[in-house]
Amino acid sequence: MQLIDGKKTAEEIRHELAKEVENMKMQGEKVPHLAAVLLGNDGASETYVANKAKACEQVGFRSTVLKFDASITEGFLLDQVKSLNNNSDIDGFIVQLPLPAHISEQKVIEAIDPRKDVDGFHPVNIGRTLLGMPSFVSATPYGIIELIKRYNIETQGKHCVVIGRSNIVGRPVSVLMSLKNYPGDATVTVCHSRTRNMEEITRQADILIAAIGIPGFVKGNMVKDGVVVIDVGTTRVPSEQTKSGFKLKGDVDFDEVAPKASYITPVPGGVGPMTIVSLLKNTFLAARGEIYK
Amino acid sequence: MQLIDGKKTAEEIRHELAKEVENMKMQGEKVPHLAAVLLGNDGASETYVANKAKACEQVGFRSTVLKFDASITEGFLLDQVKSLNNNSDIDGFIVQLPLPAHISEQKVIEAIDPRKDVDGFHPVNIGRTLLGMPSFVSATPYGIIELIKRYNIETQGKHCVVIGRSNIVGRPVSVLMSLKNYPGDATVTVCHSRTRNMEEITRQADILIAAIGIPGFVKGNMVKDGVVVIDVGTTRVPSEQTKSGFKLKGDVDFDEVAPKASYITPVPGGVGPMTIVSLLKNTFLAARGEIYK
Repeated sequence: MQLIDGKKTAEEIRHELAKEVENMKMQGEKVPHLAAVLLGNDGASETYVANKAKACEQVGFRSTVLKFDASITEGFLLDQVKSLNNNSDIDGFIVQLPLPAHISEQKVIEAIDPRKDVDGFHPVNIGRTLLGMPSFVSATPYGIIELIKRYNIETQGKHCVVIGRSNIVGRPVSVLMSLKNYPGDATVTVCHSRTRNMEEITRQADILIAAIGIPGFVKGNMVKDGVVVIDVGTTRVPSEQTKSGFKLKGDVDFDEVAPKASYITPVPGGVGPMTIVSLLKNTFLAARGEIYK
Repeated sequence: MQLIDGKKTAEEIRHELAKEVENMKMQGEKVPHLAAVLLGNDGASETYVANKAKACEQVGFRSTVLKFDASITEGFLLDQVKSLNNNSDIDGFIVQLPLPAHISEQKVIEAIDPRKDVDGFHPVNIGRTLLGMPSFVSATPYGIIELIKRYNIETQGKHCVVIGRSNIVGRPVSVLMSLKNYPGDATVTVCHSRTRNMEEITRQADILIAAIGIPGFVKGNMVKDGVVVIDVGTTRVPSEQTKSGFKLKGDVDFDEVAPKASYITPVPGGVGPMTIVSLLKNTFLAARGEIYK
């Protein structure tokens, strides 16, 4: 069993990006610039945005945070989005979700210029992903694909079972894994809450991607020997072992499944650390105009 | 075994649409208007476009065909698309594919206003489909879903196996079948040319959708008893039994598979007749502003 070390891989990618930024600077190019729009004072959202800004700094990107009161109108936010769309100094930007209930998230997402949609949430980017065209892929699926690639895991013709069909993880990763690409070209099954014979299907998986959000859902008897396991779950569960009083638990019962796996991501330290670097990578691609030419 | 009669179902839908058009007329509303852009003199393309125009007539829609020489420039075609986008008299339009090699199909498709993209090929419509949002779904997947619905075939929690991952059939239908919807909510597996253990997987199918383009690919030993079979294949094979010298053959070996199936679509007369009515249905939805409000 080999551990897929997301923390180390993320660190490698940060190094690569930092080097790229150095090159850009040496050639007198503008460094990538990410903006984040944050509404209100939700602690988790503030932490996420702060971490994204910090990650930008680490690799030499510029970052800007636009913070507004949660009471702003939808129209005001849409104007901010429009202004960011038109601001040539900003290469990409995100609007941190969730938004207050009086603002339509979908409307805001659809207002973002797809060329600056580094979260990859705009229907155009999702559609382009499905069509196998260049696109901004959202952070978690991007991170999963990158881990598989960097660990040289064979995917062509393999049976990849995805548990979960969320718009931001399960569904896009299932599409990516079946595209004529590496990583990809796999036979892909999408399971979810309505799947009747879950174990029968997961036991067929050469590659199992668990993104259902139920801690410890995948037990040892649900996988076959040699399976590659990507655990996307990050549920906070109470813990007496940590200062914070909680710890992150994946969708996979690691102790039961790891002994049977050929590769497995731990939680924490697997897919999680990859998400922010995926955002950085998208911002870099946006700055270089690599997706929309 | 019950035959899924696409011809009869298509006829029913045409009747329903004709009635709707009558209602629209009585209320003094403009009737739906479909435009088709056709380049060159490809016989098959000309026939398709003529059939689409005729189908419009049958249900009381208006239709317009814009025919150009195959030598027109990409820029000229893009201007025509723009003009159709801005023409409030046209509710929806299609650009008949394939286009001559000097014109980028993708560029043309992306130039179509998604609100008039009744072929459902624009990345925005594909992305919205994947997100479970209202969207124009392209003709074949739409026709498949409609047949399943009209025959009241149970889909929730069923294992649906799709053979083929094309952008216009396999992939969108696999997404639709796994959405939290009826028809849908199924466990879905996408197989394709790289799938190693095809038979093992197809034998698990409660619903099998064959869209791989290989005549007679699905044999009797590849399905289980009671399977629902949707055959999307329409390959022209030489035949001495027809005046034209060829006949259409599906991806399913009908004689072997039908006795084991609970429902099965014939070829011809299954999915085929549904595609044009799907286009009419989309045009109707466009005219009513039901997708983009």
